[in-house]
Amino acid sequence: MQAIAVRRGGDRPVRIEKPRPEPGSGEALVRTLRVGIDGTDHEVIDGSHGGFPDGEDHLVLGHEAVGVVEDPNGTDLEEGDVVVPTVRRRPNGENEYFARGEPDYAPDGQYHERGIVGAHGFMSEYFTSPAEYLVEIPEELADLGFLVEPASISEKAFALAFAARSAFDWQPETAAVLGNGSLGLLTLAMLDASDRFERLYCLGRRDRPDPTIDVIDDLGATYVDSRETPVDEIPDVHEPIDFVYEATGYAPHAFQTVDALAPNGVGALLGVPGDWEFEVDGGAIHRELVLHNKALVGSVNSGVSDFEAGVDTLLGLDDAFLDDLVTGVYGLDELDAAFATDDSTIKTAVEFGRR
Amino acid sequence: MQAIAVRRGGDRPVRIEKPRPEPGSGEALVRTLRVGIDGTDHEVIDGSHGGFPDGEDHLVLGHEAVGVVEDPNGTDLEEGDVVVPTVRRRPNGENEYFARGEPDYAPDGQYHERGIVGAHGFMSEYFTSPAEYLVEIPEELADLGFLVEPASISEKAFALAFAARSAFDWQPETAAVLGNGSLGLLTLAMLDASDRFERLYCLGRRDRPDPTIDVIDDLGATYVDSRETPVDEIPDVHEPIDFVYEATGYAPHAFQTVDALAPNGVGALLGVPGDWEFEVDGGAIHRELVLHNKALVGSVNSGVSDFEAGVDTLLGLDDAFLDDLVTGVYGLDELDAAFATDDSTIKTAVEFGRR
Repeated sequence: MQAIAVRRGGDRPVRIEKPRPEPGSGEALVRTLRVGIDGTDHEVIDGSHGGFPDGEDHLVLGHEAVGVVEDPNGTDLEEGDVVVPTVRRRPNGENEYFARGEPDYAPDGQYHERGIVGAHGFMSEYFTSPAEYLVEIPEELADLGFLVEPASISEKAFALAFAARSAFDWQPETAAVLGNGSLGLLTLAMLDASDRFERLYCLGRRDRPDPTIDVIDDLGATYVDSRETPVDEIPDVHEPIDFVYEATGYAPHAFQTVDALAPNGVGALLGVPGDWEFEVDGGAIHRELVLHNKALVGSVNSGVSDFEAGVDTLLGLDDAFLDDLVTGVYGLDELDAAFATDDSTIKTAVEFGRR
Repeated sequence: MQAIAVRRGGDRPVRIEKPRPEPGSGEALVRTLRVGIDGTDHEVIDGSHGGFPDGEDHLVLGHEAVGVVEDPNGTDLEEGDVVVPTVRRRPNGENEYFARGEPDYAPDGQYHERGIVGAHGFMSEYFTSPAEYLVEIPEELADLGFLVEPASISEKAFALAFAARSAFDWQPETAAVLGNGSLGLLTLAMLDASDRFERLYCLGRRDRPDPTIDVIDDLGATYVDSRETPVDEIPDVHEPIDFVYEATGYAPHAFQTVDALAPNGVGALLGVPGDWEFEVDGGAIHRELVLHNKALVGSVNSGVSDFEAGVDTLLGLDDAFLDDLVTGVYGLDELDAAFATDDSTIKTAVEFGRR
């Protein structure tokens, strides 16, 4: 079968031939439909994130997949079920986090992530997976099923952040997404659909005309150009923000978020920056967290319940938004377009097969 | 009646004479038993925190009180009820936080704090209070009722911190209190009594022999000398910490807490430092919060439900611990001893009357 991989020492995705996998006990065989591409894939390709499976000279890419069960292999799934796989897998042997069904809470080194670190991804015509990590989705979502994984990332961050405000009567009105990449825009639409916030903001650093700013406008949100309005000045220029969702990986944003927040607000951090020493007014940040009951919550990866929540949320999003978000679905012979990072590209996927 | 106050321009507590207050509509008159002293009182006295009531040349001190209802004045209270007052009061006019019974979530400027900012405290032979801010406590707790307010501070911080971990199956084993002042030690005992943690740590910067280290030892906790083991090295020297409670007001601790935490851990911040610019590895802090689902939660003041929880917790604490914690209860003619800050003083109170 055909697959898309990065080779050791390589710096771009390539097509390779691999044997079709055989499902082991408790695993199903899935025929791949589409696999989405995100910033993490680019980091894996350029070698700044993730790692190869032991003893392998390549890593099959892709962690945002949707497929059709080809062979249930004795699991509870049925042939033809449309499924989305979760990403984390047991590394070698069991650990407590996998044992209690929360692999997304396993610490560094106690998991593999398919397509990212230690295990092949889903960018191949077929893949196998333990049935427990395959989330069944409605057939109507099959074409956009590659959005379930990124949606699940935000569902988990929402759950963690809102739980952090559940000890009191939190009455948020405003939310801001830091970052206008595909995850940022998807999250903005999810927040819009949640009807939980009255006014939404989205931060970027691009000039109009720009397709991501058009999406922000169409969602009724306010575009904030971080070159003009730094994150910590959002309250002065616009208004204090009850919920900040950071999806830039730009470390100063984690600290500026404290000032951007309204009293009793919460910031969800999702970016993964490298080491970077810089000066902060640590006293003011500490004091502001305390005196206004603010919280910062980090969130990584996602679990089955987050995938299920993501499915429900995606079903409620506007078709027009989804059309604008997904700027291209490409075949195996169009990898340059699929992995493009120009300003006209928002979200892309590679198509491996049709239902 | 007699009261203890700080005068504008003054830098120490003084005894003054004031008229006995008359309860207004919805208010009860309370005869004061004891009022505890904490670090905030010292900050108020030295002028680094809080502020005088409008138009007054003095501020009656004290926010940790216990008293007996002298005149219910038509409220639901009864004469002889033992009560503890909460601290925050409406400033001028209503606001949404007071309206929904959560004054501890009101932002800066939308509250007075009795004995701290904008309103006289409880260090007088009598005080009045709206009945809604008087929490009835069991008579057996009357002598130590001045500990209910500080206990409520930690109850609120626990509630916020543990809520922040309620979105998943959190299984904490270790907790560390940063700070061996009276609030730190009381919190350590509360964590011990909660049976939620298997191993406890408490950070200080004192040499043995020391009464606070004795208390830490007696609680079965491990003393961590921050001069030898900085907060961010606790995992290497001891073990990663699931719950960190910061009660030092030392701003670097807020940031070092992220490294002290175990995966999926939470830090509650309670200190109130001044401005202080310093360098941090902001990239590493941001990344660590994200990749290990860590959280930081600020917490200030407390509400009626926290006071009620504090009462329950105090009833379960060991008498031996409480004896060691309260190093002195002094009369109005012993203010030097009551407000002492030497290393043999842990927690003190001023006694205004007896039941």
